[in-house]
Amino acid sequence: MATGRLRFFSMAQNGQVNISYVIPNDVPEIMTAGNKNYQRPMKTLYLLHGISGNDCDWEYNGIAEDVAFMYNMAVIMITGGNNFYLDRKATGCQFCTYAGQEVVDYTRKLFGLSDKREDTFIGGLSMGGFGAIHTALAFPETFGGVVALSSALVIHDIAGLKPGEPREGLLANYEYYREVFGDLDTIEKSDANPEVLYTRLKETGAKIPPIYMAIGTEDFLYKNNQEFRKFLEDNGADFTYEEGSGIHDWRFWNAYITKGVEWVLEKN
Amino acid sequence: MATGRLRFFSMAQNGQVNISYVIPNDVPEIMTAGNKNYQRPMKTLYLLHGISGNDCDWEYNGIAEDVAFMYNMAVIMITGGNNFYLDRKATGCQFCTYAGQEVVDYTRKLFGLSDKREDTFIGGLSMGGFGAIHTALAFPETFGGVVALSSALVIHDIAGLKPGEPREGLLANYEYYREVFGDLDTIEKSDANPEVLYTRLKETGAKIPPIYMAIGTEDFLYKNNQEFRKFLEDNGADFTYEEGSGIHDWRFWNAYITKGVEWVLEKN
Amino acid sequence: MATGRLRFFSMAQNGQVNISYVIPNDVPEIMTAGNKNYQRPMKTLYLLHGISGNDCDWEYNGIAEDVAFMYNMAVIMITGGNNFYLDRKATGCQFCTYAGQEVVDYTRKLFGLSDKREDTFIGGLSMGGFGAIHTALAFPETFGGVVALSSALVIHDIAGLKPGEPREGLLANYEYYREVFGDLDTIEKSDANPEVLYTRLKETGAKIPPIYMAIGTEDFLYKNNQEFRKFLEDNGADFTYEEGSGIHDWRFWNAYITKGVEWVLEKN
Amino acid sequence: MATGRLRFFSMAQNGQVNISYVIPNDVPEIMTAGNKNYQRPMKTLYLLHGISGNDCDWEYNGIAEDVAFMYNMAVIMITGGNNFYLDRKATGCQFCTYAGQEVVDYTRKLFGLSDKREDTFIGGLSMGGFGAIHTALAFPETFGGVVALSSALVIHDIAGLKPGEPREGLLANYEYYREVFGDLDTIEKSDANPEVLYTRLKETGAKIPPIYMAIGTEDFLYKNNQEFRKFLEDNGADFTYEEGSGIHDWRFWNAYITKGVEWVLEKN
Repeated sequence: MATGRLRFFSMAQNGQVNISYVIPNDVPEIMTAGNKNYQRPMKTLYLLHGISGNDCDWEYNGIAEDVAFMYNMAVIMITGGNNFYLDRKATGCQFCTYAGQEVVDYTRKLFGLSDKREDTFIGGLSMGGFGAIHTALAFPETFGGVVALSSALVIHDIAGLKPGEPREGLLANYEYYREVFGDLDTIEKSDANPEVLYTRLKETGAKIPPIYMAIGTEDFLYKNNQEFRKFLEDNGADFTYEEGSGIHDWRFWNAYITKGVEWVLEKN
Repeated sequence: MATGRLRFFSMAQNGQVNISYVIPNDVPEIMTAGNKNYQRPMKTLYLLHGISGNDCDWEYNGIAEDVAFMYNMAVIMITGGNNFYLDRKATGCQFCTYAGQEVVDYTRKLFGLSDKREDTFIGGLSMGGFGAIHTALAFPETFGGVVALSSALVIHDIAGLKPGEPREGLLANYEYYREVFGDLDTIEKSDANPEVLYTRLKETGAKIPPIYMAIGTEDFLYKNNQEFRKFLEDNGADFTYEEGSGIHDWRFWNAYITKGVEWVLEKN
Repeated sequence: MATGRLRFFSMAQNGQVNISYVIPNDVPEIMTAGNKNYQRPMKTLYLLHGISGNDCDWEYNGIAEDVAFMYNMAVIMITGGNNFYLDRKATGCQFCTYAGQEVVDYTRKLFGLSDKREDTFIGGLSMGGFGAIHTALAFPETFGGVVALSSALVIHDIAGLKPGEPREGLLANYEYYREVFGDLDTIEKSDANPEVLYTRLKETGAKIPPIYMAIGTEDFLYKNNQEFRKFLEDNGADFTYEEGSGIHDWRFWNAYITKGVEWVLEKN
Repeated sequence: MATGRLRFFSMAQNGQVNISYVIPNDVPEIMTAGNKNYQRPMKTLYLLHGISGNDCDWEYNGIAEDVAFMYNMAVIMITGGNNFYLDRKATGCQFCTYAGQEVVDYTRKLFGLSDKREDTFIGGLSMGGFGAIHTALAFPETFGGVVALSSALVIHDIAGLKPGEPREGLLANYEYYREVFGDLDTIEKSDANPEVLYTRLKETGAKIPPIYMAIGTEDFLYKNNQEFRKFLEDNGADFTYEEGSGIHDWRFWNAYITKGVEWVLEKN
């Protein structure tokens, strides 16, 4: 397995950005003999970090190498700052375009990855779980499945927030949310809201990537995930939901990332 | 010399950040025998990158290792995104506090660096030249000198910019500048303007770090540097200015970083 | 926590070498409030990799960050190639001197680590378990405890090996063992043998670092560890031995490294 | 440009090894408009480090990024310890096989590099200059050209060396040379000697990669390079030789690597 970290110039982020990766293209046959997942051609999983993290997290704290080895999966870990993987107008702040398009095009070219939808998945934890869902709905032709863990589906929590307003449960201030999500008074109807993207795709009859959701029952984002689960149910979405004892930590994410990967593999 | 890159959790940036460094604490005596600069105790230089760059630039493209070795200088290279090393209100966007305080405190503790003003310098190129000047004026007790190369002293260029307004010479859009610098109508009187910080220090009789400026005569920021040079002259500042043939590139920065370091060393 | 990787010039290895490290010196108080281990001053654990590994292993596959955080322990991960952390005569092949002296001196200076024996431990897995035992016995004044996991205590297995001789259980050829261990006919009486070092220390009444051993009951090195366990018992050594279900893998090492650390902490 | 460092498991070195690389596959057209070298398909240059170095050197101290950009050249920087890129019998010590075969196969697959001889070059400095010549002669079907800078062509210097024998100009001891080069009494007739490989290829009428040599006139290896130059001349080899004022340092290597690259490009 090649494991490493590279930097390249991103137009969408207007600067040098890092990508961490695990490419399982050299595992000796003897180690993969009984592994039917490894026998098929390599697929790709893009993994997104949470708030405060970066592209190293899924390698250092997460089990990216195990996922790569078990499922013959190129694992590409990107970084996008604390920006929820959303595009905004400011130069160099096209984080959704980066995650859903630029990094996909670039890594496919660099590593010769499959360019097929059914071989391309996106996942993440917390802010990255939100990002995985949102990015896949923004680029539904690109991704064949989503693994969304402990997702920070916070749109409804921050809607209508005012400068200086204290609001329970929020981890950052008005200025931060305004900068990242845009006008908070209209956010629920904006393209930052995954529900808006989903509804639009459904109305046009477009293909929608199937979604795997998981959340710990003690996670502070539990309620948010129930809301989105209900939204998907109400819309007859192709999705699954799992929960288990756990909080917002790597113990949970490392346990459920493999469940999610297996689910999206079966969907494709 | 220890050369490396580390990550740690920054409160000011609300996340894992990278620092690159060169610590010249193990050079064999035989290699430093005739080097009077090396004989004195190690000092510290914080180096800031330009737009699109990160903490690796001064190591990969710049001559950080040479500077460390020639002057017995711990070189600490930080990263701050395309944010001009300024504080803004949004959670995790205190880039001035990061550059002038948090990273200084942290690296002094981690590597046992001198905590004296006369041993502590800050430099940078382009946006990092602006940042070096601004940060030193924001934390004048911390830094004993500034090396500002091809500095992006753009405050007057962007003052009064309106949404959608085309303005010659600007490399980014209104939304970007508004996000990074705050209200553009009042920017010239705000703390984002180094001149404001300078004037305040002068009025209170505070110590002001001496400033080394250099700019290439073919650099697109040449005019901006003349304006700031005139401001410093008009205020009787302790500074020097050098220019030479050159554009906005590493050839210039690698030639002038050593001149700047020698100048600030003599000032302390 | 600072986590990173650096390179510096090693005289003992005659070249640039990498060190990976985790320095838990910036954990917010709120995260360490109930952790009595974290309240005391930082101690240091040197960790050695196994055959085919390098300084990244304990960070990427092992739980170095957890150990650092849980026990307020600077974790220094070194690399020494497939050389069993032994000195040999060839220029640049002083791997024992490197592990027991040079890297200790250098990292203490670079990071301001404690220079006390009772704050300094060494551990490793497989070849690194052998290395931890051997290095501590070669530098008994330096190390206050040893954590030896699944140790490759292979001296008796390779004694008397001849060129071309097939011998069950060996993973490398005669030329390799000859190069790394020296004359294989006299190896059991040489300084490459930890038993020789132990016996010499005992005879001179020197302080001997206490040793924590652990081995999986399904590990192919199980028998070797029983032999060394018996040697320590027969000599009335200050040591402990633990075994548990497991093979030669990270599942075992990540489970037992914390047990070992707790044991050596109590010994000091 | 992707610049990065990866690790993968090398069978030839029996362990995790690092590769540094620069892949210039994403340079915006505007930056390459007038560059005829950049317009043609990407070629590959493998670069070897000198004694005490590793795969980072050509990136950190050398101008790998410039070479990549100027010539549309994937630059792959490998590491092989202080082993002169030679195979020996000991398990995991097949450094020639690594440099000439394993790393070529692996990086071609990972990055989709050209598998044509005329697109594949090898270069190096000092020990790596020796390695480039030797490896290309060992794998003449693989490499279309050699760039050998300040090459450590030391075979004749160490021939017949005895244990403990002081011999002027040698930087390491008998044990080291014996380990790396094999029997020193027969070394001049062994496959470690590039002249032996060259002669064999010539006798069989095989294709021989053209060789670019350069050496500083103040370099301590000047004489050695004259000897090899004479050997090539006497054999009517396809080679060129350049010398210039300079010692054994990066100033020389960074000046001559581009001359060498241009020469091998014209040969193919």
